[in-house]
Amino acid sequence: MAEEERPAARPLKPLFSVGSRKSASGSQSLAAETAVALSYGGSSHAVLMATPADLVDLAYGFSLTEGIVRRPDEILGVEPVPFTSGIDLQITLAEDRSAALAARRRSMAGPVGCGLCGLESIDAAMRPVPVVEGDDFTMSTDDVDTAVAALSRHQPFFAKTRAVHGAGLFRPATGLVAMREDVGRHNALDKLIGALARQGEAAAGGAFVVTSRLSVEMVQKAAVAGAPVLIAVSQPTALAVETAEKAGITLVASARGDGFSVFSHGSRIRQ
Amino acid sequence: MAEEERPAARPLKPLFSVGSRKSASGSQSLAAETAVALSYGGSSHAVLMATPADLVDLAYGFSLTEGIVRRPDEILGVEPVPFTSGIDLQITLAEDRSAALAARRRSMAGPVGCGLCGLESIDAAMRPVPVVEGDDFTMSTDDVDTAVAALSRHQPFFAKTRAVHGAGLFRPATGLVAMREDVGRHNALDKLIGALARQGEAAAGGAFVVTSRLSVEMVQKAAVAGAPVLIAVSQPTALAVETAEKAGITLVASARGDGFSVFSHGSRIRQ
Repeated sequence: MAEEERPAARPLKPLFSVGSRKSASGSQSLAAETAVALSYGGSSHAVLMATPADLVDLAYGFSLTEGIVRRPDEILGVEPVPFTSGIDLQITLAEDRSAALAARRRSMAGPVGCGLCGLESIDAAMRPVPVVEGDDFTMSTDDVDTAVAALSRHQPFFAKTRAVHGAGLFRPATGLVAMREDVGRHNALDKLIGALARQGEAAAGGAFVVTSRLSVEMVQKAAVAGAPVLIAVSQPTALAVETAEKAGITLVASARGDGFSVFSHGSRIRQ
Repeated sequence: MAEEERPAARPLKPLFSVGSRKSASGSQSLAAETAVALSYGGSSHAVLMATPADLVDLAYGFSLTEGIVRRPDEILGVEPVPFTSGIDLQITLAEDRSAALAARRRSMAGPVGCGLCGLESIDAAMRPVPVVEGDDFTMSTDDVDTAVAALSRHQPFFAKTRAVHGAGLFRPATGLVAMREDVGRHNALDKLIGALARQGEAAAGGAFVVTSRLSVEMVQKAAVAGAPVLIAVSQPTALAVETAEKAGITLVASARGDGFSVFSHGSRIRQ
């Protein structure tokens, strides 16, 4: 909680409510949303709109899934600096990572602008995913239902605000190992990945469970973290399925605690 | 339809389905998702993951809401160039807009990286919203319910895929004037704004209705488009409410066809 710069929810009373929402005319808890910059060596790399909680986790997870670092110990420090208009996460990298990022910036190999043509930018955004190999983790169909139910029971911000996404790591033997929430589904997954990395907890031998839809970026992040199974409450995009196939990830979708569909690498789900 | 580069949905059969999803074991329609670059003068400005439909609308809407152009006639042409890995929207700007963008790039005033410090990047992302003034448009509480019901009846991609967001313009006298869908809620709203701009249809005197949650960026886009009312099926963030107050926008949330809550500028909703 010491890391949390600002409250993650704010009480706010609607001006008025009508119809079925009349009961909601008192004060509601709205999800907080803040501009968060990720800066390396004093230079900003991205600005995200995020829930202002678990921001050090976000810094670790974003740095890992964007390939800025390969291991958490390549991050020497994260200092959240609050401003009126947002929070700047000032991240200090190990020297070789700092040099690699500077070289990447000089060669303009980011996905956005700065002289790249459209095709180069697309190829940078769609860089090949790592393959989750040799993970012989399996789980039963009941485990999948249990994982989804466990996540839905452990979402404190969602219970308050009904407007944030959750991402958790589930192990059949132990249940939900870690869980993070955010107004953005990408941020929720990055926070989870960062939290696991900081705790020295591997994603291997477990399943990521997310409350959101499965777009390709969710699969890319799971692949970088090495999660063999990715379970989502909602539907995947076609590109998410294609990418999960390539990444060796078992994609489970439309999982609402009472059944689901499996779209790739089905052998990890014991029927 | 000539603009649509690729199918917006793709049939895909899950490997298997269990429990309540057993009935879904046949072929499902999954939402297509493609990397889309927006390039100006041959240099890419952003890469979005988007539904590959209505891409010229996306180019217009994005250019308007990002402040790259102020009017649609400042865009001289949009050519979608397909690649294996994605689609490059090559946008040609009027000369003065092209010069303004080049100057903006030189001064590094984008929200992301390229030498800006974190605070500068945050301030670029959180630039002041225009104020929707003098719009004496009002609608009844029944109109709000009707708008939400109309949107939910007219979402062809969602009906197929259950995994895309919709954004529409509703006028009480005429109903749903235009509607666009996308795997990303920001893209859906940008496509709507672009479609309206190309049709010469003002957002004034009507309400934007969206199927998604209301984050601050949705309010920023509605403000640039000049929509006096923004209705969402889901809840707003605290920052979205604060921004709607400043922008003079009536924010209606949790609108599911049978009631809603109003969070800002309530006088436009006749009780």
